[in-house]
Amino acid sequence: MDKQKLNAVLSAMEEKWIPQMIISDPAVIFYLTGAWIRPGERLLVLYLNKDGNHRLLVNDLFRQTKDLGVEIQYYNDTQDGVEILSRFMEKDAPVAVDKNWPARFLLRLQELNAAGCYVNSSAIVDGVRQIKTPDEQERMRVASKLNDAVMEKLVGALSEDHTELELKDILLKLYTDAGCEGFSFEPITAFAGNAADPHHEPDASRGKFGDCVVLDIGGLKGDYCSDMTRTVFLGTVSQRQREIYEIVREANLRGIAAAKPGNRMCDVDNAARGYIEEKGFGKYFTHRTGHSIGLEVHEAGDVSAVNQAIIRPGQCFSVEPGIYIPEENIGVRIEDLVLITEDGCEVLNHYPKDLQVIPFPEKG
Amino acid sequence: MDKQKLNAVLSAMEEKWIPQMIISDPAVIFYLTGAWIRPGERLLVLYLNKDGNHRLLVNDLFRQTKDLGVEIQYYNDTQDGVEILSRFMEKDAPVAVDKNWPARFLLRLQELNAAGCYVNSSAIVDGVRQIKTPDEQERMRVASKLNDAVMEKLVGALSEDHTELELKDILLKLYTDAGCEGFSFEPITAFAGNAADPHHEPDASRGKFGDCVVLDIGGLKGDYCSDMTRTVFLGTVSQRQREIYEIVREANLRGIAAAKPGNRMCDVDNAARGYIEEKGFGKYFTHRTGHSIGLEVHEAGDVSAVNQAIIRPGQCFSVEPGIYIPEENIGVRIEDLVLITEDGCEVLNHYPKDLQVIPFPEKG
Repeated sequence: MDKQKLNAVLSAMEEKWIPQMIISDPAVIFYLTGAWIRPGERLLVLYLNKDGNHRLLVNDLFRQTKDLGVEIQYYNDTQDGVEILSRFMEKDAPVAVDKNWPARFLLRLQELNAAGCYVNSSAIVDGVRQIKTPDEQERMRVASKLNDAVMEKLVGALSEDHTELELKDILLKLYTDAGCEGFSFEPITAFAGNAADPHHEPDASRGKFGDCVVLDIGGLKGDYCSDMTRTVFLGTVSQRQREIYEIVREANLRGIAAAKPGNRMCDVDNAARGYIEEKGFGKYFTHRTGHSIGLEVHEAGDVSAVNQAIIRPGQCFSVEPGIYIPEENIGVRIEDLVLITEDGCEVLNHYPKDLQVIPFPEKG
Repeated sequence: MDKQKLNAVLSAMEEKWIPQMIISDPAVIFYLTGAWIRPGERLLVLYLNKDGNHRLLVNDLFRQTKDLGVEIQYYNDTQDGVEILSRFMEKDAPVAVDKNWPARFLLRLQELNAAGCYVNSSAIVDGVRQIKTPDEQERMRVASKLNDAVMEKLVGALSEDHTELELKDILLKLYTDAGCEGFSFEPITAFAGNAADPHHEPDASRGKFGDCVVLDIGGLKGDYCSDMTRTVFLGTVSQRQREIYEIVREANLRGIAAAKPGNRMCDVDNAARGYIEEKGFGKYFTHRTGHSIGLEVHEAGDVSAVNQAIIRPGQCFSVEPGIYIPEENIGVRIEDLVLITEDGCEVLNHYPKDLQVIPFPEKG
């Protein structure tokens, strides 16, 4: 196990009077042990204990060949894995439980009276993971640098020949050619009205002269995620599109300016959202301003109106305001990742944000 | 909501003295409402109540345009969705909870004392879903018929030119050309030693003369899943490979023969596994014999040694024994889907199971 990360987690447990913890998220288990184990529906638990009696409970199907620095307890499909887990636990002490642990395991553990009480472990693990180690910071830089280069090629590939789905195929090839392991999330390559749906999935639509195009893309490199959005225009840009684009760009810049230690996460949201509201488009900005990112594309730590947490150096999150007006077929989002430094932030994306009109034939 | 399916669920609730239930699985919500809502990490709950006070709790980001036959309660990212859910609940009555509901929601609900006690809803919902309606049965037939045709084309595409990953790309195109929505799961296209790992992910390996090839593939058609495995040989087959193949084929046939109403799920496992053990290869058959399938590729209802549930008409599951000997670079698995009828089963796959040697050059 990574001693530095493990000790940070054990200290956070101690601070919160939690003597034992159940970690089930494969990403967190990778974070601590360096091993990716993807058990699907099967039980996988890294059990941490203040006295150092840590165990990794793994299904027989996923035998480990490397020494992970923690004792492994195997079980098979005919055994009650949760009952085996309960044998290691302190029956009278609180246990912190992974926020995404499926109810079938938690209810079974409660039935076995395996602990004194059950609390959500988020406050412990998420807080530690939010502060990226120097190695993690470097990985985030490398991943985003590749994403800049891929964005440039993807914008260059926009043409009347390609549907949204075909652009997605092209994009996957761009990432693998760039040395990435794949997408960090299902990308959005959305034209016109589709761009006005912040969660649109690529379909058989083709771009037309005058369309806006939202490209929300990210790759996985060295196990870490990139994530960036740019909006460009095909052939021409209307006065209305330009107005909205410039408002979103200014909101993005204001959000980034507020991303510094001492401010709260909600201050970043407010900086971006406040400007969009001031310009009269508040009701068309329908999502939070951003999310934390690292090993996973969405990590705990929203950039939202309700997150009052103080920003600390080492955090990494997205700033991605948008304006979506389906009835006008307009959607604009501009997103960058920022890495919080001692006195401000480093913007990890460098692909330009100036309004860009792509050459495009008037009749496609 | 689909009245027939809803009533089956409400009856099953009544039988188990459960007056209220929390459904969070998008597949189950689709099963009952006909709407696919994929909320990612956000809360999504279909709350069912014996008195008919059903509610669908959905994040604002996923506004529904169709009438789903159930009152929708929207919430946004700044609200405590679980607290809103708790307002509809009966505080002194048991509640059944979706088996995969994340702990962060369940722990919050428990903190709010929203119900008298909390039990796993699997026994209710899974039992209903296991019995496929006539419409679902027809969809399973259609999906498997397409899978037969795709398998034939995939076997035809085996050559020294293609890596496992390239075969996966070819396969995706075969499914979309056949009118499928995509894969029903990440396929296995594994040569030789890779075939001996039942969970191998396609990589850059190429087939060589004398290799076995495991093709475990499935597509999604009309929202329902197919899933079939065939093992073929490149250029030649050794005596040892032939021996193992014939044992697995016989185990597959014996498993299928045991798949009938009145038998237990473990009887199917035992029929296949018993034969493999009898032939001395028991320790090389390292997984359960099969799994239920339908809307999802893995549904509740294992074909395993511990599942004593009686088989009922309308069930659909896989029969997929295998023998894996990594030290000999041999892996063989043969899988078909069966649909349980009144007095036996209908085998949904018709691609041949005779030992097949593909023309392949001796020096590739």
